[in-house]
Amino acid sequence: MEEVEEEVRRIVEQVKELHDSATSFVSSSSQEEISLRKRSSVVDASIRRLHSTLVSDKHLDPKLFEKLEEDLQRARCMLADGDTSSFLPFKPQGRFVRMFLGPVNVRATRKDIQLKVKEEYNSYRDRTALLFLVFPAILLTLRSYVWDGCLPAFPVQLYEAWLLFLYAGLAMRENILRANGSDIRSWWLYHHYCAMAMALVSLTWEIKGQPNCVQKQKGVRLFLQWAMMQGVAMLLQNRYQRQRLYTRIALGKAKRMDVVWGETAGVDGQLWLLCPILFTLQGFEAYVGLQLLRTALSGVVAEWQVLICGILLVVMAIGNFINTVETLMVKSRFKAKMKRSKSKAELD
Amino acid sequence: MEEVEEEVRRIVEQVKELHDSATSFVSSSSQEEISLRKRSSVVDASIRRLHSTLVSDKHLDPKLFEKLEEDLQRARCMLADGDTSSFLPFKPQGRFVRMFLGPVNVRATRKDIQLKVKEEYNSYRDRTALLFLVFPAILLTLRSYVWDGCLPAFPVQLYEAWLLFLYAGLAMRENILRANGSDIRSWWLYHHYCAMAMALVSLTWEIKGQPNCVQKQKGVRLFLQWAMMQGVAMLLQNRYQRQRLYTRIALGKAKRMDVVWGETAGVDGQLWLLCPILFTLQGFEAYVGLQLLRTALSGVVAEWQVLICGILLVVMAIGNFINTVETLMVKSRFKAKMKRSKSKAELD
Repeated sequence: MEEVEEEVRRIVEQVKELHDSATSFVSSSSQEEISLRKRSSVVDASIRRLHSTLVSDKHLDPKLFEKLEEDLQRARCMLADGDTSSFLPFKPQGRFVRMFLGPVNVRATRKDIQLKVKEEYNSYRDRTALLFLVFPAILLTLRSYVWDGCLPAFPVQLYEAWLLFLYAGLAMRENILRANGSDIRSWWLYHHYCAMAMALVSLTWEIKGQPNCVQKQKGVRLFLQWAMMQGVAMLLQNRYQRQRLYTRIALGKAKRMDVVWGETAGVDGQLWLLCPILFTLQGFEAYVGLQLLRTALSGVVAEWQVLICGILLVVMAIGNFINTVETLMVKSRFKAKMKRSKSKAELD
Repeated sequence: MEEVEEEVRRIVEQVKELHDSATSFVSSSSQEEISLRKRSSVVDASIRRLHSTLVSDKHLDPKLFEKLEEDLQRARCMLADGDTSSFLPFKPQGRFVRMFLGPVNVRATRKDIQLKVKEEYNSYRDRTALLFLVFPAILLTLRSYVWDGCLPAFPVQLYEAWLLFLYAGLAMRENILRANGSDIRSWWLYHHYCAMAMALVSLTWEIKGQPNCVQKQKGVRLFLQWAMMQGVAMLLQNRYQRQRLYTRIALGKAKRMDVVWGETAGVDGQLWLLCPILFTLQGFEAYVGLQLLRTALSGVVAEWQVLICGILLVVMAIGNFINTVETLMVKSRFKAKMKRSKSKAELD
C-alpha cells in the first residue's frame, strides 16, 4: 500500500519538474525565436532595398553589377532555404485555408518537414494525373462499347464528385506550399477555385438520357475528351518538372520549395515539346466552353448550369493561356540576360 | 559605388551570421525538444500504469484511493494542459486531414495558439447554427408566400452546396482539435462524413417542379424543417456548452481543449431541458429518413439518391441517439460516484 502511495508522490514530483523545464524551455526558446525573427526580417528588408538600389543605379559597372547581384541572390537563397527560412516574416495564410481549417498554422518550422510536404504534393499530382487519364477513358470506352452511346448519370456524377474532391485537395496543398515559402503563381489557385465551382455546378446538372442522347450529351463527351488530354499533359509535365526542379536545385538556382504548376513549364529543352500540347489543350478547353455557351444561348439546353460551366471553362482557358505565355516570356528574358552577360564577359 | 559594394559585403556577412545562429538554435532546441518528448511520454505511461494499479487494487483504503486518484488526475491535467502538452506523444492525424492537406502538421506547439483554434471553432459553430436556422427558414417562407408551394431548384441546391462546405469545415476543424488534444468523440467526425455524403448525393438529386410539386417535394420540405429545429438546438447547445466548459475549466476539471459536441451535452442543470429537444430532433431525423426510404421503396420516386439519403439520415439519427445516451450514462455514473464518495466521507 505504502509503495503505491510513494509511487504516486514520485510521479507527481516528476510531473512538476517536467512542467517546470518545459515552461522554461518554451519561454527561452520563444524569446530566441522572436529575436531571430526580428533579425531575419531586417536582413530580408535590407536585401530587397539593396537590390532595388542596384537595379536603379545606372552608373554601375556592368561586371560589378553582375557580381553584386549574384552575391545578393546567393544571400537570398541562404536566407530562404536554410534554417533561417522558418524565421522569415510569415506570408499570410490564404482565405481558403482559413475558411476550412480556422487559424491553425500550416507552416512547417523544420525544413525536412517542408520538403516532405513538397514531396507528397508531387506524388499526389502523379497519382492525380493517372486518374485524370484513366477515369474519363473508362467512361468513354464503356459509353462506346457497353452503354450504347449514352452515358448513365451515376458514373459521370461520381467523376464530377471526384473532380471536386481533387481540386479541393490541390487548392489546399498549394495554399499550404505557398504559406511554406513556395513561389507558386496565384493564378493556379484561382484556377482550382474555378474548377471546384465547375465540379459543384456540374453535379447539379441533370445528365439526360434517351432519346437523342448523343446530341444532349455532347458537352459531357467533349469535356471527358479534354480531361483525357489533360491527363496526358499532366503526366508529361510532372516528369519534366521534377527533373527540371532537381536540376535547378543542383545548380543552386531554385529554392527547394519552388513549385511551377505543370501547365506552364517543363525542362528547358523539352519545353518546346510541351508548349504545343499545352496550347492545344487550352484551345480545346476554350472550344468546349464555347460549345457549351452556344448550346446554352441557342436554347437547345436551357439550364443555367450549362451557361456557368461554359463561362468557367473559357475563363480557365484564357487564364491558363496568359500564365503560360507570361512564364515563357520570363524564361526567354532570363535566357537573353544570361546570353548578354556571357557575350559581355567574352568581349571583356 | 564602393559604398554599395561595401553594403553588399556587409549584408552577405550578416546573412551568414544569421544562418549560423539559426542553425545552432534549431539543432539545440530540437535536441532539447526530443528529450522533453521522451520524458513526457515516460511520465504519461507511468501515470496510466499507476491508475490501472490503483483501480485493480481491491484492498486499498477508499479514502486513500480517492486521494491518490485525485493526485494522479491533477498530475494528468498539469501534463496535458500546461506547456508540456506539446511534448506529449502525437495522436496520429486523421486520414481526412491527410487526404486534403498532405502530411502537414496541424498540431499547434504553443498553448495560446491551441486555445485560439478552439475559440475560433466555437465562434464558427455559433455562426453556423444561426445560418442553420435562417437559411431553411427563408426557403420555407418564400416557398409558402412567394413560390406558391413549389421550391425552385437553384436555392435548394445552393443550400445543399452550403451544407457540404459547412460539414467539410466542421470535420476539418474537429480533426484538427483532436490532433491538438481535444477528447471529441469520434462519432461526431463520422456524423460529419455522413452529412457530407448526403449533401453531395442530394446535389445530384433533381428537384422536381410542377405538376404535383407538393407531393414530390415532401422530402425536401421535411428535411428543411428538420434543419430549422437543428439550428435552434445548436444555438441553445452552443450557449450552454460554452458556459459549462468555462465552469469546468474554472473548477479545474476539464482540459481547456475539450470539446463536447453540442448534440450530447449541456450545462448539468439545463441538460434536462436540452435532452427532450435532442431526442425529438433525433426522432424527427429518423422519421424524415424513413419517409424517404418509403418513397424510394414504394417506387413513387425511383431515384437512387432518395434511397441513399434515407439510409444516411437513419444512420445519423441512430448514431446521435446512441452517443447522447452514452454521454448521459457517463454523466450519471460520474454523479453517482461523486455522491457515493461524499456519503462515504460523511460516514467516515
